[in-house]
Amino acid sequence: MSYKIAVLAGDGIGPEIVAQARKVIEAIAEKYKHQIEYTEALVGAVAIDEVGNPYPDDTHEICMNSDAVLFGAIGHPKFDNDPSAKVRPEQGLLAMRQKLGLYANLRPVNTFKSLIHKSPLKTELVDGADFMCIRELTGGIYFGRPQGRSEDGQTAYDTCVYAVEEIERIVRLGFEFAGKRRKRLTIVDKANVLATSRLWRETAQRIEPEYPEIEVEYMFVDNAAMQIITWPKRFDVMVTENMFGDILTDEASVISGSMGMLPSASIGVNTSVFEPIHGSYPQAAGKNIANPCATVLSAAMMFEYAFGMMKEGALIRKAVDEALEAGVVTEDIADGKKAYSTDQVGDWLADFVK
Amino acid sequence: MSYKIAVLAGDGIGPEIVAQARKVIEAIAEKYKHQIEYTEALVGAVAIDEVGNPYPDDTHEICMNSDAVLFGAIGHPKFDNDPSAKVRPEQGLLAMRQKLGLYANLRPVNTFKSLIHKSPLKTELVDGADFMCIRELTGGIYFGRPQGRSEDGQTAYDTCVYAVEEIERIVRLGFEFAGKRRKRLTIVDKANVLATSRLWRETAQRIEPEYPEIEVEYMFVDNAAMQIITWPKRFDVMVTENMFGDILTDEASVISGSMGMLPSASIGVNTSVFEPIHGSYPQAAGKNIANPCATVLSAAMMFEYAFGMMKEGALIRKAVDEALEAGVVTEDIADGKKAYSTDQVGDWLADFVK
Ligand SMILES: CC(C)[C@H](C(=O)O)[C@@H](O)C(=O)O
Ligand SMILES: CC(C)[C@H](C(=O)O)[C@@H](O)C(=O)O
Repeated sequence: MSYKIAVLAGDGIGPEIVAQARKVIEAIAEKYKHQIEYTEALVGAVAIDEVGNPYPDDTHEICMNSDAVLFGAIGHPKFDNDPSAKVRPEQGLLAMRQKLGLYANLRPVNTFKSLIHKSPLKTELVDGADFMCIRELTGGIYFGRPQGRSEDGQTAYDTCVYAVEEIERIVRLGFEFAGKRRKRLTIVDKANVLATSRLWRETAQRIEPEYPEIEVEYMFVDNAAMQIITWPKRFDVMVTENMFGDILTDEASVISGSMGMLPSASIGVNTSVFEPIHGSYPQAAGKNIANPCATVLSAAMMFEYAFGMMKEGALIRKAVDEALEAGVVTEDIADGKKAYSTDQVGDWLADFVK
Repeated sequence: MSYKIAVLAGDGIGPEIVAQARKVIEAIAEKYKHQIEYTEALVGAVAIDEVGNPYPDDTHEICMNSDAVLFGAIGHPKFDNDPSAKVRPEQGLLAMRQKLGLYANLRPVNTFKSLIHKSPLKTELVDGADFMCIRELTGGIYFGRPQGRSEDGQTAYDTCVYAVEEIERIVRLGFEFAGKRRKRLTIVDKANVLATSRLWRETAQRIEPEYPEIEVEYMFVDNAAMQIITWPKRFDVMVTENMFGDILTDEASVISGSMGMLPSASIGVNTSVFEPIHGSYPQAAGKNIANPCATVLSAAMMFEYAFGMMKEGALIRKAVDEALEAGVVTEDIADGKKAYSTDQVGDWLADFVK
């Protein structure tokens, strides 16, 4: 059996970090005798430049025919601070999410022993923090319609919409994850204000009895924003809607203190996408200094979630842990000690895997 | 001239902490020869119990006839986790905001030297942090209509709406505050996704040239959620819409490490409301242990913003600083040292003022 990976490197440091993840994936494939086919495709600002569309149809076709998508990063400074530009890289991201049905964005939040001092939070608060944020990714105010302006241009409106099936699908995913972890599920909403949140809560409460072993709590989003900082260890699995998830997952990402280490997975109906949570970091592009670990760990999630290969995922994680231990790291986390290049870290990880 | 204060003590610890703020206000009035009239009114769970409405018409009448409202806290455990209850204390809060036209919620974020070790963030990050969060409070998805369910009950929707005037009013307030402070204004939105945010940004950009001395930056809400934790000192004045403000102001409130110290003001068209940011803390109700400082500092904001009395406000702040220095504090911030009762702290503050 052969696995098909669509490779969407994107902008900025995207190509460099994706290249390292590929080295590691190839090393895994060699070791475990997996057949992997790669197909590269355009996305982001580079796709706008080349074909005028940040998520071209060809790219979509390639993704649809893949078992998984390895994604780098998108965004270019020329599009910054001009949210009204006709074509923007983020539109590609949103189109991709919708067309591929990427309904669940998974972001593990954890710390790395050797990097814990980099956290803005006190060590005793974050040491041992380990939770999974699950963000609904194809519904809510991101895609709800109507959206726009009144005729006189004096009023603007957005619509947040959720259907029971959308909520049920992601809430079930939350229960499943909690079942494989510490059996605690936190559902974050604003049910004291929003009708959509009340439907979320009702739906979750209806499903609850099917998972008697899971302890469920309902938390208002404002409270969650506090607890993520004051007591991150209390969380095991957190599920929330799209907009709240956008804010809370980014907030939670600061816990580790090292953006360059954080992977994500977006689970879809048609295929799934694996990508670092950091951006395209244009200032570093082409300099061979970007940290490839977040992308490499996204590849670990790909083996685990897209291919169901747990050993392979675990080995990649181990490689990253060992690289940290051995000090084979890029300058963002080198702390003044010797820094390795993006390439060197990728090579070291691939060698370790072999 | 006589000033009229409506006193809405509310639930839980509300009455106890409001009583201390009144002592301090009375001490100020005596010292500076101000005439102050108090009128008490029901709000919250106690108002539901007594008259079946968390914000009764009588209370509204009293607020409308006041120069300022001193507010305690609302909320009772019997309403928790039942967001669909017919009448809830929070509805009173929302009704009050809307009927009094409380369009701007101001929350100063700062630290207290003697309490800085209580912050979940590292001292070097928070020491010196000092910014003002301004949250739009009467628009957006909180009040936008339609809101509800589809006929078959399978879909729920909320509407986020903003009119240019609503945006302009609060953005101008942000510019004014920045002008009196360090001249930096951060406008937080999600203009890469939301039509309302694009109108926010357009409106702010149109106003910008009128305040050439203010440095304005536009920041996406997900980024703001990170920067509040990783670099709080970068902010001077932050302005944002209702829902984002709900999340970000609560997130920012953890910086100080002491909820019991944080005041707020809600500036209105008809009158303004001054209240601690913490809740009704029902477990502590009646025990004479609650920290009155947040309410006392809210009274300081009342003198400054509602009555334009800066000396009076400053003296109250000084009283609170001195109480902290002198260790005259309640158990939440006593750190194992001698703890004073709510009453004792209130008396000490009032004596200091005299
Ligand atoms: C770029 C933007 C549209 C996107 C989002 O809001 O979803 C980003 O912030 C993210 O979280 O992936
Ligand atoms: C109780 C709730 C409706 C309210 C809000 O969301 O505005 C509260 O969280 C607040 O911030 O004052």
